[in-house]
Amino acid sequence: MIRVGIIGATGYAGGELVRILANHKDAKIVWYGSRSYIDQRYSQVYQNMFRIVEDVCRDDNLQELAAQADVIFTATPQGFLAGLLTEEILQKVKVVDLSADYRIKDVKVYEKWYGIEHKSPQFIPEAVYGLCEINRGQITEKTRLVANPGCYTTCSILTAYPMVKEGLIDVSTLIVDAKSGTSGAGRGAKLPNLFCEVNENMKAYGVASHRHTPEIEEQLGYAGDCQVTINFTPHLVPMNRGILATEYASLKRKADGSLPTCEEIRAAYEKYYAGEKFVRVLEPGVCPETKWVEGSNYVDVNFVVDERTGRIIMMGALDNLVKGAAGQAVQNMNLMFGLPEDEGLELVPCFP
Amino acid sequence: MIRVGIIGATGYAGGELVRILANHKDAKIVWYGSRSYIDQRYSQVYQNMFRIVEDVCRDDNLQELAAQADVIFTATPQGFLAGLLTEEILQKVKVVDLSADYRIKDVKVYEKWYGIEHKSPQFIPEAVYGLCEINRGQITEKTRLVANPGCYTTCSILTAYPMVKEGLIDVSTLIVDAKSGTSGAGRGAKLPNLFCEVNENMKAYGVASHRHTPEIEEQLGYAGDCQVTINFTPHLVPMNRGILATEYASLKRKADGSLPTCEEIRAAYEKYYAGEKFVRVLEPGVCPETKWVEGSNYVDVNFVVDERTGRIIMMGALDNLVKGAAGQAVQNMNLMFGLPEDEGLELVPCFP
Amino acid sequence: MIRVGIIGATGYAGGELVRILANHKDAKIVWYGSRSYIDQRYSQVYQNMFRIVEDVCRDDNLQELAAQADVIFTATPQGFLAGLLTEEILQKVKVVDLSADYRIKDVKVYEKWYGIEHKSPQFIPEAVYGLCEINRGQITEKTRLVANPGCYTTCSILTAYPMVKEGLIDVSTLIVDAKSGTSGAGRGAKLPNLFCEVNENMKAYGVASHRHTPEIEEQLGYAGDCQVTINFTPHLVPMNRGILATEYASLKRKADGSLPTCEEIRAAYEKYYAGEKFVRVLEPGVCPETKWVEGSNYVDVNFVVDERTGRIIMMGALDNLVKGAAGQAVQNMNLMFGLPEDEGLELVPCFP
Amino acid sequence: MIRVGIIGATGYAGGELVRILANHKDAKIVWYGSRSYIDQRYSQVYQNMFRIVEDVCRDDNLQELAAQADVIFTATPQGFLAGLLTEEILQKVKVVDLSADYRIKDVKVYEKWYGIEHKSPQFIPEAVYGLCEINRGQITEKTRLVANPGCYTTCSILTAYPMVKEGLIDVSTLIVDAKSGTSGAGRGAKLPNLFCEVNENMKAYGVASHRHTPEIEEQLGYAGDCQVTINFTPHLVPMNRGILATEYASLKRKADGSLPTCEEIRAAYEKYYAGEKFVRVLEPGVCPETKWVEGSNYVDVNFVVDERTGRIIMMGALDNLVKGAAGQAVQNMNLMFGLPEDEGLELVPCFP
Repeated sequence: MIRVGIIGATGYAGGELVRILANHKDAKIVWYGSRSYIDQRYSQVYQNMFRIVEDVCRDDNLQELAAQADVIFTATPQGFLAGLLTEEILQKVKVVDLSADYRIKDVKVYEKWYGIEHKSPQFIPEAVYGLCEINRGQITEKTRLVANPGCYTTCSILTAYPMVKEGLIDVSTLIVDAKSGTSGAGRGAKLPNLFCEVNENMKAYGVASHRHTPEIEEQLGYAGDCQVTINFTPHLVPMNRGILATEYASLKRKADGSLPTCEEIRAAYEKYYAGEKFVRVLEPGVCPETKWVEGSNYVDVNFVVDERTGRIIMMGALDNLVKGAAGQAVQNMNLMFGLPEDEGLELVPCFP
Repeated sequence: MIRVGIIGATGYAGGELVRILANHKDAKIVWYGSRSYIDQRYSQVYQNMFRIVEDVCRDDNLQELAAQADVIFTATPQGFLAGLLTEEILQKVKVVDLSADYRIKDVKVYEKWYGIEHKSPQFIPEAVYGLCEINRGQITEKTRLVANPGCYTTCSILTAYPMVKEGLIDVSTLIVDAKSGTSGAGRGAKLPNLFCEVNENMKAYGVASHRHTPEIEEQLGYAGDCQVTINFTPHLVPMNRGILATEYASLKRKADGSLPTCEEIRAAYEKYYAGEKFVRVLEPGVCPETKWVEGSNYVDVNFVVDERTGRIIMMGALDNLVKGAAGQAVQNMNLMFGLPEDEGLELVPCFP
Repeated sequence: MIRVGIIGATGYAGGELVRILANHKDAKIVWYGSRSYIDQRYSQVYQNMFRIVEDVCRDDNLQELAAQADVIFTATPQGFLAGLLTEEILQKVKVVDLSADYRIKDVKVYEKWYGIEHKSPQFIPEAVYGLCEINRGQITEKTRLVANPGCYTTCSILTAYPMVKEGLIDVSTLIVDAKSGTSGAGRGAKLPNLFCEVNENMKAYGVASHRHTPEIEEQLGYAGDCQVTINFTPHLVPMNRGILATEYASLKRKADGSLPTCEEIRAAYEKYYAGEKFVRVLEPGVCPETKWVEGSNYVDVNFVVDERTGRIIMMGALDNLVKGAAGQAVQNMNLMFGLPEDEGLELVPCFP
Repeated sequence: MIRVGIIGATGYAGGELVRILANHKDAKIVWYGSRSYIDQRYSQVYQNMFRIVEDVCRDDNLQELAAQADVIFTATPQGFLAGLLTEEILQKVKVVDLSADYRIKDVKVYEKWYGIEHKSPQFIPEAVYGLCEINRGQITEKTRLVANPGCYTTCSILTAYPMVKEGLIDVSTLIVDAKSGTSGAGRGAKLPNLFCEVNENMKAYGVASHRHTPEIEEQLGYAGDCQVTINFTPHLVPMNRGILATEYASLKRKADGSLPTCEEIRAAYEKYYAGEKFVRVLEPGVCPETKWVEGSNYVDVNFVVDERTGRIIMMGALDNLVKGAAGQAVQNMNLMFGLPEDEGLELVPCFP
């Protein structure tokens, strides 16, 4: 039985870890870390867990936790883990970090976009970017530190990955227009996240400046073996869960000037995803809907080719708290402990 | 492995049966009945089931289905099953009926409230009212026909049951004010259920005439061993899932004129529910919220005593598609096949 | 042109005052008071007012404001106005208080339910309870201080008023089950009001203890000329605006044991409301819906008689920010300045 | 007093015309046309209009209506008006068509995108495209037929218009990612528009094939004096009202390779919109939100320049039923009758 510690257990992503691990047969949570609710019963913070979780919340003592757990999930603000992580800790316990601290290889890029100094850049090279479908080979029982991808990032990357990897699109034209449910904004009591401010409303935010941008660019850059610079525009949607990414790029024409056919493009998607349990390439003509993946670890993707403009419109949908956070973190944990990758993740999407 | 047939598999309750049974280790769906979508793949109707369910929808042939299944769930309009059920079918297969056809023992009451003739009243005496927490003793491997309780009904009854059973309230004063998410209205394409008609709106409907009224009255009548006549007022709420029942009744005073204490009332609730997995009596002061049970088979109940008026306010919350329909149906199936009652129902509520 | 000052202009009720007064041809806002946003442009707080309101927010200086305005609206927390109001102010300016400070005649009742000491009880006798449909005669050009009724209160009282006034119901059996949109909770950044906590959720709160209870009891007590003690249960609904009150009471039987007829009851409603512009008694069989009054100053009411239980179910719906706050406040202002009561309130409900 | 007839008065756009015209001091509705509800009282279809509108619904007799009205609004399905319009009618009455029948000058383009034959192409040349901010000069008291722009179209065009007109962007790179509330889908009882299908969900639809595409292309083509071919992707959002368009295009570099500055771009927006009452260019850094224009005739626009990619991200928001339909239709009517353009349109946005 894997002993799990969670730092940040009372945020929405932390809560989702608790929900998923409650039905994981090889893992058991031993530490519900929450600075805000120390000594309160976890089920008083999240009443849905009444009679399911009996534990109380504890503080963020990473040292002590390292001695008691086999793996730590950190669902914490940027900079938190980077400020505390040590070699000593990593020798005792595996870490899956749901923050951005170790996602970006170039520390200068991190510091520029996040506006904070990175306190432990020495661990960046070791950290594996935990997008299992792409980096599965690097996530093994030897892996000590996984940087769990962001929610927007997972959706944006997986939606475009086969096109970039196969060189079918001109990456300089790539635009990602993403829409997110409000749980992505976290559980902080902030005015813009009040019900009456979000409900019956829609807006873009972080235009040309959102922190997930360099993460998408870096990973797609690896895929395409080139420098990638994109437009990424997040939007806030009046729903709890779900991210929908609509992505645009010009298709590369063949030598004869023709566009790749839908079949060729579909073959590229199938090449990378046919064997992937958690990525579903939908049937032709079916647009992904966030509700169809709600509560599950699936990413649904599909595309439309527009002959008129020579562009492909790629679409992807996932649950930001599952495949975009906690589910993917558990998927990484499974790989790090030699378990079946889908252990505890046989979550059937809930509709309606 | 129990072979399951579903009639009405593409309604919301039918879809929820499919979701729940997908993770049931001792049951397997062999027949997805849906008159509206015959020969279409089930996952084209409910895309959330893409790559999870490969079957196509079939018609409603109860005879043929009886030969292939061990149990049939009928999530069908009122009168459907009553018009088709025969002794021959019941000799071959168990039936859990999610409609109202066999819930009410007095066929005249059924015919009056539902406005249709009952075509097979001969099965009414045999049918067990499948509210497991109350009628568990009658739901056994010998049971052939279970009348699965309605969503409003389950919530309304379980919220008041200990008070009625223990004679702590004056049942003639009982009022049930219930609020339901919109999935309770079904998947029919009707104008009042359009997004723009329901969203940002709230209303009562079926005031003093809703069909779940006699069902609540009958069951609470058994509990209190008396005639029960109540006011039941359903309301439509702009959310997908969830029923909240707020119930009012005058407490019976003791010989000395005093009201029962909160501790005495709590003891009554604990007497009936302490051993029940799916009924959670919340801690003092905590009001049930529908979101805390979403996606799960739990009913959360609690109460407040108002010394000023001498009344108790009882509150209950459940997910209308789970404990109010499909989850309870599976709970009944488990009992009918000698399985652990919570098999496949270890559903952790999803928040947010 | 009436010069209007608003204290608390950046709360939801304050914002609604600004919206309504923007189209009022005889009033002009001269002071947008907001402690939180002093010196910020009002339209930066509420971008809907961009290019409509050019003013900046100012502090809460009641003295200075009294010198510049003809009427002050205070949309402020309980106790605020009571702590600042003086005879000197009232000699200079009329005040419409949207808080509860002067609504309850018995200061002990106020202090018990609100848990604060009342700092200026000397003004309570003078304050007129500003429910225009009932107290119109007392709201005149001589009136200096109006206690604007609460949102739940307005809805609850107007829904039952004719029944109580005409002695048609047994008031000791009166139960008010009320449901409110989330704007009623105000614009404070509190966790329970976050989008993800409210959306897809429903709950009761303040059960048997909500502060609007004594206000309803007092006013219905005047109507019935008797002591009224009720159960009042508020619920939070995932919508922005709207209150729906469902009220239950036993009808008084006539000498011959029969219930009052629907026609007799309707006649009672018409007696009080036939001439009222802002109270619409709906046609038989039509249940009020909050969406039908959204953005307007209407209250829609109706009733159903249940012969089985001898009870009447009364229903009322209003927009909590309009008839439940700002609209009613403007209605009071109109009366206090001798204007047509509906001036600036010809707001057509917005659907969908 | 202008006598107004509405065909399609019980759809959402028709209902909004009724709401707006209820407060228009120079217009009076004399004909509420609705095939579905003939002889029913209008206020029984839209209870918000109870006691405001007393008329009954009438059929679609255009001939008879032409004799009784000064202007007809047709809020009808595509092809309806084209099949009935005659020279005789136009000699008697002005027509503002809210359908697409006369929006597109090239009848072949219309027939291709709409898949129906145009029955009266002879009126296309005469019809004025009623986007007042751009075509005001052509909408005069002599105008007989106005093609009222579509909701997506109005938003998409006005958001990009100054950039295209001033030649600041490469129109071949223009991409419009649009998000709409559900009232845009109309009031038809269709399964995909049910509350439970839309709520907590988001999807793209009509990808690369939506009928508003050629309308946007034609109008921006006039602005840029060039052929325009764009990607336009509509999305369905779980809210009643509002359209948000997020638009992407590469900025044209100057001779020295530099991008236009934010000030230069802002100047272009101001050049066209500074004098426009209904177009609000927001302050730098403020992203439009649909809620800020709800219920009003405003379009809010703004932009962000991304130096990294050389693109501009333009954003626009409007209420699809007001500026996207009924409000714009009234704006056109005002111009056609020599009234102030904003008569009856002083609608203050409603928040929250």
